[in-house]
Amino acid sequence: MGNEINRIKGGDICSPKGFTAGSIFAGIKSPGQDKKDIGIIFSETECVSAGTFTQNSVVSPSVTWTKQTLKDNKLQAVVVNSGCANCAVGDQGFIDAKETAEIASKSLSISIDSIAVASTGIIGVELPMALMRKFIPKIELSTKDGAGFARSILTTDKRTKEIAVSFDLGGTEVTVAGVAKGSGMIHPNMATMLSFITSDISIDSNILKEALSESVNNSFNQISVDGDQSTNDTVLIMANGKAGNKKITNIEDSKRFINALDEVCIFLAKEIAKDGEGNTRLIEASVKGAKTLNDARKATKYIVSSNLVKTAVYGRDPNWGRIMMAVGASQIELDESKIEIFVNDIQIVADGIATPYNHQSVVIAMNQPTIRLTVNLNIGEESAKAWGSELTEEYVVFNSAYTT
Amino acid sequence: MGNEINRIKGGDICSPKGFTAGSIFAGIKSPGQDKKDIGIIFSETECVSAGTFTQNSVVSPSVTWTKQTLKDNKLQAVVVNSGCANCAVGDQGFIDAKETAEIASKSLSISIDSIAVASTGIIGVELPMALMRKFIPKIELSTKDGAGFARSILTTDKRTKEIAVSFDLGGTEVTVAGVAKGSGMIHPNMATMLSFITSDISIDSNILKEALSESVNNSFNQISVDGDQSTNDTVLIMANGKAGNKKITNIEDSKRFINALDEVCIFLAKEIAKDGEGNTRLIEASVKGAKTLNDARKATKYIVSSNLVKTAVYGRDPNWGRIMMAVGASQIELDESKIEIFVNDIQIVADGIATPYNHQSVVIAMNQPTIRLTVNLNIGEESAKAWGSELTEEYVVFNSAYTT
Repeated sequence: MGNEINRIKGGDICSPKGFTAGSIFAGIKSPGQDKKDIGIIFSETECVSAGTFTQNSVVSPSVTWTKQTLKDNKLQAVVVNSGCANCAVGDQGFIDAKETAEIASKSLSISIDSIAVASTGIIGVELPMALMRKFIPKIELSTKDGAGFARSILTTDKRTKEIAVSFDLGGTEVTVAGVAKGSGMIHPNMATMLSFITSDISIDSNILKEALSESVNNSFNQISVDGDQSTNDTVLIMANGKAGNKKITNIEDSKRFINALDEVCIFLAKEIAKDGEGNTRLIEASVKGAKTLNDARKATKYIVSSNLVKTAVYGRDPNWGRIMMAVGASQIELDESKIEIFVNDIQIVADGIATPYNHQSVVIAMNQPTIRLTVNLNIGEESAKAWGSELTEEYVVFNSAYTT
Repeated sequence: MGNEINRIKGGDICSPKGFTAGSIFAGIKSPGQDKKDIGIIFSETECVSAGTFTQNSVVSPSVTWTKQTLKDNKLQAVVVNSGCANCAVGDQGFIDAKETAEIASKSLSISIDSIAVASTGIIGVELPMALMRKFIPKIELSTKDGAGFARSILTTDKRTKEIAVSFDLGGTEVTVAGVAKGSGMIHPNMATMLSFITSDISIDSNILKEALSESVNNSFNQISVDGDQSTNDTVLIMANGKAGNKKITNIEDSKRFINALDEVCIFLAKEIAKDGEGNTRLIEASVKGAKTLNDARKATKYIVSSNLVKTAVYGRDPNWGRIMMAVGASQIELDESKIEIFVNDIQIVADGIATPYNHQSVVIAMNQPTIRLTVNLNIGEESAKAWGSELTEEYVVFNSAYTT
C-alpha cells in the first residue's frame, strides 16, 4: 500500500473490521420521507475508546452517562437518537439515558457499562421512552447499514457526512472511519455536533486519548457555524483491534494513525461548516508564521467566527480590514507591519497595509465554493487552519422563524 | 439637592463647569445634510484623566498617541475625527496622530502633550491631513456646541448619544456628562465604540482610574452588537475640578461619583446597543444569584452575544433552550436544577425545566422595545446586566453589501 492514506470509496463506519450498524425510524422526529431517528454502532468485541465532549456547563445527561461508561474502557456499542436532546429535563434525563443503555444492553446481549448514548434535537423535552423501548430492540445490525446510521443522527443537516480511510501499518491494513452531524438549525434548539469514529486498529488506551484530543483540536474545535456551543456535543472513537497490527503503545508509532485520524476529522469538520444553516460555501482561514500553534489556532478561529468576516464573504467583498480586526481581536502576538493577507492566492495586504491588486480577480475568487483567507504573520513558524460558514439572510430568517 | 442623581435635561459634555466644545465638517466623510466630521472637547484648565482602550492586538495609532498623553495626566483637549480610523496604514498613522495633536496645540495654544486624539471610520486609509490642517484651526469652541461634537463623532449611527447628570457632594453640585458613538456598520470597517466623559469633580487621579474601570466593566464592556471588537475603541474621562468640591482622595468617598458615572456609562452603553446595525430594540440580560460577580457578568455577556438568542428575540420566540445554552457556554458555576428564567417578568423556567406559562403573554412581552431576559442561578448573591442588539436580516444585508 505504500505510505499514503487511501480514501475508501463509499466507505462508512462499518468499513473497519468487526463493526456493524443499524438504524430505524421510531417517530421521535416528525415523520418525513426516508427518515430515521435511532441508530446503533456495534463492535463484535470490546473497544478501547476515547471521547471529547461539550464544555457547556449545561450538559445533556446522555453525555454524562457516556462519560461514565468511558471510565471502564470496554465500549462495545453506541446508541444515538435524533429529534430530542434529552437536556434540561431535570433528573429524568439521566434515568432515561441509563434506561436507553439498558434496553440496548438486553437487545444486544452485552453489559450496560459497555454502551454509550448520545442525543441531539430539541432541548427541554423528555426522551419519548415508550418509543425507545419499542424500537431499539427492532434495530437490525449489519455491515451494510453505515449509511442508515449516518441518516439516523441528522437533525436539519442537508446531507450525511461520512468518510473511511485505510493505511498500511507494518504490513497490516488499518482502517479508520467516521460519521458526523452538524448544526443546521432550522428548528430552534437543534444545535449539536456529533461524531462517531470507528477503527480496527490495535492501540493503547492512553495513546488513543491523546490522538483523539490532538485531531479534535485540528478539526472540530476549529469550526464555527454561529459561535454557539451545544449542550450535547460529542466526539467518540472506538478501536477494536481487529486489524491485527502490532499494538501501538507510544505516540511516536501512532503518527500514521494520527494522520489518518486527522484526515477523517478534518473532512467531517469541513462538511459540517459547509452544511451550516443558510450556507452553501466554505470559508477556510489559514494563519501562517505565528509564534505558537495556539496563536495560529486562536487567530484562525476568530476569523471564521466573526460575523463581519462571514457577511463580507457572503457579499464577495475582499474586506481585509475585517480580517485584520479579527486577527487582532484574538489578542495573539503580532507585528502589524509584517502582516500579509491573501484571498485564495491573491495578495491584498503587504507589510500590514493595502497593496494593489486586480479587484475583479478577487471578486471572482470570492465566488468560489471555498474561499481561502490566508494571513501570514511572518513572526514565527507555526500555522493552523479553521473553517466556517457564511452568515446569510437565510440564517437569520430560519433562526428567527416563530416556532415555539 | 438631596441624595439623588439628577438627569440634566438637554445636558451635554459642556454641562460640567469649565468645558467647551466645537465641531466642523471637513469633508473626511462623504458630504451629507448637516454632517460634521471633526470635533474638539476643551477644558479651561488641565484635567486628571483616565482611559480604557481596545484590547485588539491591531491598534490605531490614534489610540497609541492618546495612551501616551495620559501618562502625563494633564489632558486639556481631545480631537476626534470620524470617517477614517487611521488604522493599518503603517508608520504614517502615528505621524498623522501626532500632527493632529500638533495642529490643535497651535490652534488652542496649549501643550501638545495635553491633547488626546481619537479616530473612527474606514480601516486602511490614511488620514487626509490637508483637511485636518485646514479645518481644525477653524473650529470654534463654545459651551453651546456639545450637540455638534456629538454629531461629529458619528459614523453610521442613526442618532447622537448624550447625557449629563449632577449630584450633591457635601454641599457642592458636581456634574458628570458623557457622549458616545456606536458601531452601526453600513459601511465596512466602520466599527468603533468611542465615548468621552467630562466632569467638573475634583478627584485624585488613581481614584478616577479605578472609578472609570469599574464603570466601564458595568457598562461598555457589557454590550454586544455583533461580537467584533474594533481597533479604535476608546473611553476617555476628563475631570477638571472646577466644581470646587473637597478633592476626593479615597474610594469610599467616591461612591456617589461612581453612581453618577455608572448612570452616564450605562445610559450610553444601552444607547449603543439599541442603535446597533439593523436593530431597533434592546435586549437586556440579567443574571442573578451567581457565585461571583465575574460569573454574572460573563453569563449575561454570553446571552446578549449569542446569535441564536439575538435571532430568537428578533423572532419574538421565548426560546429558553437557547438562553440555557448561552449561560452554560459561558462555563460559569451553576446548578442546572436551580435555574429560573424569566422573559420580562413572566417565568418560563423553574428548577431548570420548562414551567407552564401563558404563551400569548410572553409573545406580547417580546414585542416590547426592551426585552428583559432574566436568569436566576439561585446559588449565590451576585448579579450583573448586559445589553445587546437583535440579529436581523438587515444586519446581514448591510454588512454584506458590496462596497469595497
